[in-house]
Amino acid sequence: MPILVMKFGGTSVADLERIGNAAQKVAREVARGYDVIVIVSAMSGKTNELVDWVEQTSPLFDAREYDAVVSSGETVTAGLMALTLQEMDVPARSWQGWQVPLHTTSAHSAARIESIPRDHIDQKFDEGMKVAVVAGFQGISPEGRITTLGRGGSDTTAVAFAAAFEAERCDIYTDVDGVYTTDPRITDKARKLPRIAFEEMLELASLGAKVLQTRSVELAMRNKVKLRVLSSFEDNDETSGTLVCDEEDIMESNVVAGVAYSRDEAKMTLVSVADRPGIAAAIFGPLSDAGVNVDMIVQNISEEGRTDMTFSCPTNQVSRAEAAMEKAKAEGEINYHGLIADTDVAKVSVVGIGMRSHAGVAARMFQALRDENINIKVITTSEIKISVLIDRKYMELAVQALHDAFDLATAG
Amino acid sequence: MPILVMKFGGTSVADLERIGNAAQKVAREVARGYDVIVIVSAMSGKTNELVDWVEQTSPLFDAREYDAVVSSGETVTAGLMALTLQEMDVPARSWQGWQVPLHTTSAHSAARIESIPRDHIDQKFDEGMKVAVVAGFQGISPEGRITTLGRGGSDTTAVAFAAAFEAERCDIYTDVDGVYTTDPRITDKARKLPRIAFEEMLELASLGAKVLQTRSVELAMRNKVKLRVLSSFEDNDETSGTLVCDEEDIMESNVVAGVAYSRDEAKMTLVSVADRPGIAAAIFGPLSDAGVNVDMIVQNISEEGRTDMTFSCPTNQVSRAEAAMEKAKAEGEINYHGLIADTDVAKVSVVGIGMRSHAGVAARMFQALRDENINIKVITTSEIKISVLIDRKYMELAVQALHDAFDLATAG
Repeated sequence: MPILVMKFGGTSVADLERIGNAAQKVAREVARGYDVIVIVSAMSGKTNELVDWVEQTSPLFDAREYDAVVSSGETVTAGLMALTLQEMDVPARSWQGWQVPLHTTSAHSAARIESIPRDHIDQKFDEGMKVAVVAGFQGISPEGRITTLGRGGSDTTAVAFAAAFEAERCDIYTDVDGVYTTDPRITDKARKLPRIAFEEMLELASLGAKVLQTRSVELAMRNKVKLRVLSSFEDNDETSGTLVCDEEDIMESNVVAGVAYSRDEAKMTLVSVADRPGIAAAIFGPLSDAGVNVDMIVQNISEEGRTDMTFSCPTNQVSRAEAAMEKAKAEGEINYHGLIADTDVAKVSVVGIGMRSHAGVAARMFQALRDENINIKVITTSEIKISVLIDRKYMELAVQALHDAFDLATAG
Repeated sequence: MPILVMKFGGTSVADLERIGNAAQKVAREVARGYDVIVIVSAMSGKTNELVDWVEQTSPLFDAREYDAVVSSGETVTAGLMALTLQEMDVPARSWQGWQVPLHTTSAHSAARIESIPRDHIDQKFDEGMKVAVVAGFQGISPEGRITTLGRGGSDTTAVAFAAAFEAERCDIYTDVDGVYTTDPRITDKARKLPRIAFEEMLELASLGAKVLQTRSVELAMRNKVKLRVLSSFEDNDETSGTLVCDEEDIMESNVVAGVAYSRDEAKMTLVSVADRPGIAAAIFGPLSDAGVNVDMIVQNISEEGRTDMTFSCPTNQVSRAEAAMEKAKAEGEINYHGLIADTDVAKVSVVGIGMRSHAGVAARMFQALRDENINIKVITTSEIKISVLIDRKYMELAVQALHDAFDLATAG
C-alpha cells in the first residue's frame, strides 16, 4: 500500500468536532487506498497553557521536566483521533513519540530527530491497521526521557515520518488553504500558488510567511519529501493547496514567486566605529551572546579609519542589543560615537528561483519602489531573494507595488 | 536513607499554589532525612475533562486509547511538582509510569500492578536525588502500551511503591485530616482516630467512608505498609492524621472503631420464590451478569416449598436488577409472585476489631436503635462488622445514637 502522511495543526484539532472533521479527511484517503500516518498537534491553546504553568512554576526551568509536561497535549489529541477513527470503523491506533520510538538527541526543548524505526508501525499495517496516529512534537532521548522538538515540531515530525516511510506525500493541514504570492490581507490580488520550490518556501518561511516552519521545509528538501499545504476547513482533492516540491517538478513559473514582509524589524546603526580587522566579530559576537537575532548587515565605506555599521534585528530585541553594545564599549571591546535605533522600519522581500536565470529583478524592484517614492534604507540580496528595509508606514504600499510590478496576480 | 512515600490527591494539587504547598511538605520530609517518593494525581477536574472527551468521542471506547488519553493528567502534575521542588533547591525529577517502569497486566482501565523494579530510582537516589516524583495511576502493559489502574489508582500506586521500596510509611495527603469515628457532618461528637486497623479501614472504606480506596488498603495490609491519612491543607507533625496499621500496633481501642453509613441503598424482595436447591445461584447469577452489586442477602424460612428472598443493592441499580429478574422469570430460570423494591432505605454499620473478643455488641446496637424506635429491616454480620438496613429518614438519628451507645466520642 502506498503511504500518506497527514499532519493536523492545533486549530485543525481544536475541539472534538474539528477532530471529527479531520478524521473524515483521513478516512477519505484510506478509502482511496492509502495506509495513513497521521501526525497531530495539541488542541489549540493547550500547549500554551502547559508552557505558562511551567514558566510560572520555574522561570529557569529544567528543560527535561518542561518537555515531559508540554508534550502531553499531543498525547491527548493522538488518543482522541484514534478513537474517532475507530468510531468510523477505520482500524487505527495511537503512538506516543517514545513508543515508535522516535529517537532524538538529548537537546531538550529543541531536540533533533535521530531515527525513526519503521518495524512496529509497519507490522501493524501488515496486520490490517490502516491509520497510525502519532503524537507530534515528541521524542525520546538516549537517556530514555521525553524530548520535544521545539517550535514547529509537529511539522518536522510529519516530514521525518514521510521520509522514513517513503510516503507518497506529506500533507500539512492548516488554517490557510495554501501558500500565496503575498499576504491576501494586504492585497486582494494575492494568488494561491499551485506549486512552489523548496528553496522559495524556505525564504518565504524565514521571511515571516508562517505557513510552514523553516526546519520542516529544510528536512523535506533534504529528503525529497513532497510537501503539500492545504486547508483543514475545506473539501480538498488531489490538486488542492500548494505543493512544495523540487524545482524540476515545477514546469513554469514566474521569475518571482512571492512578496514577503516582516513588520517588526528595527534598524540599528553604530555611528563612527573605529574600523580595524576583526571589528565585525567584536560587534556581532556580543550581540549573538546576548541572543539578538541579527538579520541584515551593512557596513559603510570607511573614512579616516572610522565607519558606520548598520544591522537589523526584531524590534523586541533592541534594548537587549543596546545593552550588549554599551557593555562591549565599556569593556573596551569596541568604540563608537553613537548608537541610533530606528524602530519604525519594515522588511519587504521578493523571492523566486527564477532570479537565478533572469537579470534585472533588482532593478525592476527598485524602480517600482521609486515610482511610489519609497526610500530604501538597507538592501541585502541572496541568490533567490532581494530584501529591503523601508519606513514601516510604506510597507503595505510596497508589497502592493511589487506584487503588481512582477505580475504576480497572473500565473507564469 | 529511610524512604518515605507521600501521595497527593487531585484537590491537593489542584493549581500551582497548591502544588507549591504540597512541595513544601515534601521539602520538610527531605530536611528530616528522608529520601522521598512522591505520587501525584491529576490536577482536580483534569481527569474528568479527559474522560468526558473520550466518552463523547467513542461511547464504547477502546480502553487502550482511553488509558493513553486519561493518564496524561498525572504526567503534567508530576513534571510541575518536580519543577516546583527544583525551585526550592530540592534535587528532584519526574517519572511517568512506563519510565520506572511500573509493569501491569494488560487489563486496560483496571490494570493490576505486576512489579516495580527499584534499580532506576535507587540509582538516582544514590546519585544525590532526594525526591522521585512519580505520576500515579499509570503503568505499562506487557505489550508496551499505557495502562491505568482504575478508580483510586493513585492510592494504589503509592502503596505499591511503599511496598517495593520498603518505605518507612506511606502518607496519603487528602482534603480531610484523618479517619473519624463517623462522618462529622452527622454528629459533631465525631472524633478523629489516631490509629485504625487495616481490617477496620477496609470495612469502613467499603461502607462508603471515601477516605481511601479499598484496593489500596488491601494492598497495604498484605504488604504491611504503614499507611497514614492526613490533610494537605494543615501543618502536620509525626502524630497528625490517622495511621492505618496492623492490629498489634494498636495498643488500646474501643470495641467499636466507628459507625459508617451508606445512603443510596435499595432493598429488593422477591416474594414467594419456589424454593429448591440452586435457587440462590439462579437468582444471583443473572444479577451479577447484569452488573448489579448485591450487598446484603437474607432468605426467609421456607414454607410449603416457597420462600422470600431479600437483597440490597445501590439505588441506581434497581431498574437493572428488576430487568434481570423479569428476564430470568420469562426464561423459566426462576419463579416468583412479586418483586418489591424499597428505595427508601439506608445502611448503618458498626465496625471494630474489638468485636472479636467482646460479646454483646449486636445486642447493644439493637437496643440503641430500639430506644429510638428505629425498625430494623435487614441485618448482616461479619467478624468485625454489624450492618442493618433501616428507613432512610432515620439514618442520621441511628448514626448519632450508635455513636453515643458505643462511647465513640471518648478514646478507648
